[in-house]
Amino acid sequence: MKDTSLPSTAGVVNKLIDSLGKLPGIGPKSAQRLAFYLMRAPEDQVISLSDTIRNIKNQISQCRICCNVADSELCPICQNTKRETNKICVVEQPQDILALEHVGVYRGYYHVLHGAISPTEGITSQNIRINELMVRLDNGQVEEIILATNPTTEGEATAMYLSRLITPLGIKVTRLARGLPFGTELEYADDVTLSRAMEGRQNF
Amino acid sequence: MKDTSLPSTAGVVNKLIDSLGKLPGIGPKSAQRLAFYLMRAPEDQVISLSDTIRNIKNQISQCRICCNVADSELCPICQNTKRETNKICVVEQPQDILALEHVGVYRGYYHVLHGAISPTEGITSQNIRINELMVRLDNGQVEEIILATNPTTEGEATAMYLSRLITPLGIKVTRLARGLPFGTELEYADDVTLSRAMEGRQNF
Repeated sequence: MKDTSLPSTAGVVNKLIDSLGKLPGIGPKSAQRLAFYLMRAPEDQVISLSDTIRNIKNQISQCRICCNVADSELCPICQNTKRETNKICVVEQPQDILALEHVGVYRGYYHVLHGAISPTEGITSQNIRINELMVRLDNGQVEEIILATNPTTEGEATAMYLSRLITPLGIKVTRLARGLPFGTELEYADDVTLSRAMEGRQNF
Repeated sequence: MKDTSLPSTAGVVNKLIDSLGKLPGIGPKSAQRLAFYLMRAPEDQVISLSDTIRNIKNQISQCRICCNVADSELCPICQNTKRETNKICVVEQPQDILALEHVGVYRGYYHVLHGAISPTEGITSQNIRINELMVRLDNGQVEEIILATNPTTEGEATAMYLSRLITPLGIKVTRLARGLPFGTELEYADDVTLSRAMEGRQNF
């Protein structure tokens, strides 16, 4: 019964729904909802959103020191001279910094690798920002490298690689604890998580 | 411990996250994910999305007949001369047409009210497209009006109002069935749904 000879809404609306639906985490229903919202939203909000999206790629660059996203030579964290200069926390992506800063327990600096070593995807140690990290260790100020790559095969391979590279320099290398996430039940924890929680058991 | 004196990411990135977070159904985490996606997306996809958003308000208008969104004088449905001219299905919003067309069992035309009567929000019968609907009934071709307003207080008040207005014209007025939604369990149905399902019980 469905009529596909003519669409059920205007072409420009379909185009907007399609464009929005290509974004990650936006399904067809959400795309539709957003499109109809934008059609009724105030003109200035729509123009402002359009401009912000258009300009994002031109306005951002990489921090000269830590490779975080930045809109000037240095990112806001590297601009902050009050942080602890003897620690660098190594993450895969800029958004990982946001997550860690949201927690607020870490006061050192960061380094963004922009990826992880992945032989299956052809990403080697040369394709991520490891050289930039090694340069930062030359001045002898850094006493601890905290590896905060993802707890995935790629993230752990990257952490292993970095650990072998940095430990010989006499710098302490640590990584985020592996264990049971807060709020879960032991009964439902997967085997890998449970075995790591047991191996890495901490003094009470 | 959290440092609020300097943000943890570049200002333009924060601005994009804020703008995206104002959209309906996009929480802070989704906004962040979208922002970092857009920063890495191909230039042409980003520009195209920006343009589509910017132009949507200029390019759309209301269908001269049914008040659906349109990018020319008539919406795609009113342009389609193969549909059944003796039926009009009345909906609150243009996106309701998409939902009904997706189902594909209805072959008549539509009318979009752009709202529902709501005394608490100060929306009267004059603020929604009821006059435009009444004009369409003048030619005597329409034999059935299907009221497909939302099953909410406002939607039902609007349906009641329209029913009283249209029934005296000798036109059959129906509405979408009220009852148990598919895939739910009777045990968990709310009282209103259950009482309507009982009152409106259908022959098997």
